[in-house]
Amino acid sequence: MLMTSEEAFAHVRPHLSPARYTHTLGVHEVSITLAKRYGADVQKCELAAILHDICKEHDVRDMRQTVTEVLKEPHWAQYGDELLHAPCGAHYVQHHLGICDNDILAAIKSHTTGRAHMSIVEKVVFVADYIEPNRAFPGVEKARLLAEESLDSACLYALQQTMTFLLQKEVPIHPETVCAYHAFLKRKGRSTIE
Amino acid sequence: MLMTSEEAFAHVRPHLSPARYTHTLGVHEVSITLAKRYGADVQKCELAAILHDICKEHDVRDMRQTVTEVLKEPHWAQYGDELLHAPCGAHYVQHHLGICDNDILAAIKSHTTGRAHMSIVEKVVFVADYIEPNRAFPGVEKARLLAEESLDSACLYALQQTMTFLLQKEVPIHPETVCAYHAFLKRKGRSTIE
Repeated sequence: MLMTSEEAFAHVRPHLSPARYTHTLGVHEVSITLAKRYGADVQKCELAAILHDICKEHDVRDMRQTVTEVLKEPHWAQYGDELLHAPCGAHYVQHHLGICDNDILAAIKSHTTGRAHMSIVEKVVFVADYIEPNRAFPGVEKARLLAEESLDSACLYALQQTMTFLLQKEVPIHPETVCAYHAFLKRKGRSTIE
Repeated sequence: MLMTSEEAFAHVRPHLSPARYTHTLGVHEVSITLAKRYGADVQKCELAAILHDICKEHDVRDMRQTVTEVLKEPHWAQYGDELLHAPCGAHYVQHHLGICDNDILAAIKSHTTGRAHMSIVEKVVFVADYIEPNRAFPGVEKARLLAEESLDSACLYALQQTMTFLLQKEVPIHPETVCAYHAFLKRKGRSTIE
């Protein structure tokens, strides 16, 4: 049986600064709205949203060690420290909070990079993280409008914007992000690439 | 022994419309300038520049067949018809014009997508194709300035701009282009990704 939202909030709160907690409340709120609109499992979306940033403020060296030595996925350590909290978050909630639901774990793991063939729970959390009310960056209003029309369109737009931002900043692009972009293009009928 | 520039022009001219021939003259001119500035083999850069678009106006179905059945590299057919002429051009000049020099063949094959670990001849033709005097698009002036300072910087900028353009157009990005972007980031000390 899954834990309640209240239990998840109690678990996550000590890990987050006040600003990050406010962001988490925003992601939680938007995830409920999107889950209801698109028929996703609301409880799973809620838990993934509440817990998605649980490792965001953990020590970077510890997280590098976790992806390299525990998860055996060392490539996460190469694509920028901002990504580490996603795989580490999924690992943390599984091994410290006993969450075994794969939809929730995948949604936490993919919430920063995206992934090819995302489940609906993953899409809800990915989009909610991008558009929650505290976000203020060029393009967020367009993303909010797209999220009212189509979850896939909002995902594709977020991926396009994220990749464009990374290119401008001259930082690497995680391979899963490129795969996610191509997967959403294919779903839209704009390419045949798997 | 390599053919002369005059021989290469005579070979390529029947394959190209007047506008494409004008473009080719521009790439040839800029390739000579860049080759001299950066110490590349001028004759190789000239021949690759003259012949780089030899297949650009060939039949798309024929080129799809070539990459799939002859080159056994079917992925070229998945990333947009605009890319086909590059691998097909390298194949054509090797098998119909007898050019066996790997620097020239690689420069023709990679001139649209880029590639990780490009040789200096490849970089010269890649940049010359992007900035030749007939090009007029947002950012080309910045690319021309960068090409006077650093061949690597001009390559990286062209890759960033190309990927941003592909994202805006919602079309796939060839894996070699992503690899090239990461390789130039690494050369600049901005990542460790191979």
